Amino acid sequence: MLVYADYIGYLAAIIGTLCWLPQTVKTWRSRETKDLSLAANLLVLSTVVLWFVYGIMMEAWPLVVGNIISIIAVGAIVTAKLIYK
Amino acid sequence: MLVYADYIGYLAAIIGTLCWLPQTVKTWRSRETKDLSLAANLLVLSTVVLWFVYGIMMEAWPLVVGNIISIIAVGAIVTAKLIYK
Repeated sequence: MLVYADYIGYLAAIIGTLCWLPQTVKTWRSRETKDLSLAANLLVLSTVVLWFVYGIMMEAWPLVVGNIISIIAVGAIVTAKLIYK
Repeated sequence: MLVYADYIGYLAAIIGTLCWLPQTVKTWRSRETKDLSLAANLLVLSTVVLWFVYGIMMEAWPLVVGNIISIIAVGAIVTAKLIYK
């Protein structure tokens, strides 16, 4: 039975993930990454990984789900930055 | 007594907040916001507000603390965008 808070959490996870998609899609379509800051994206990547670990430890599944997708989206941006410089 | 998970959570909150500061500072120093997407920043703002509410409901204090600061940082970007267009 989903706790009421989980609805808020899953909504945050969905919207939060949407925030990364435009940049991820734009980066992989254009293969242009010189305007992107590797440091900033690594900071964001470490944040979503930490929230993911925290979500597992707290069994806060919306956090886990939301951040898995963010890890993939931000990870794709960092990967593109490393490849295309 | 801080639960071990809280250390992870507070670390995520601190790093996560750092991610927004460069943009917030740059925006308020330059007063230039035409390159910023209001829609994207509103999406981010609603995300941090939702995680803040979720954190309160789950009594996950790292989430609450981290997202209060993010609300201020992202809120400042949205405010600047609305003022300076």
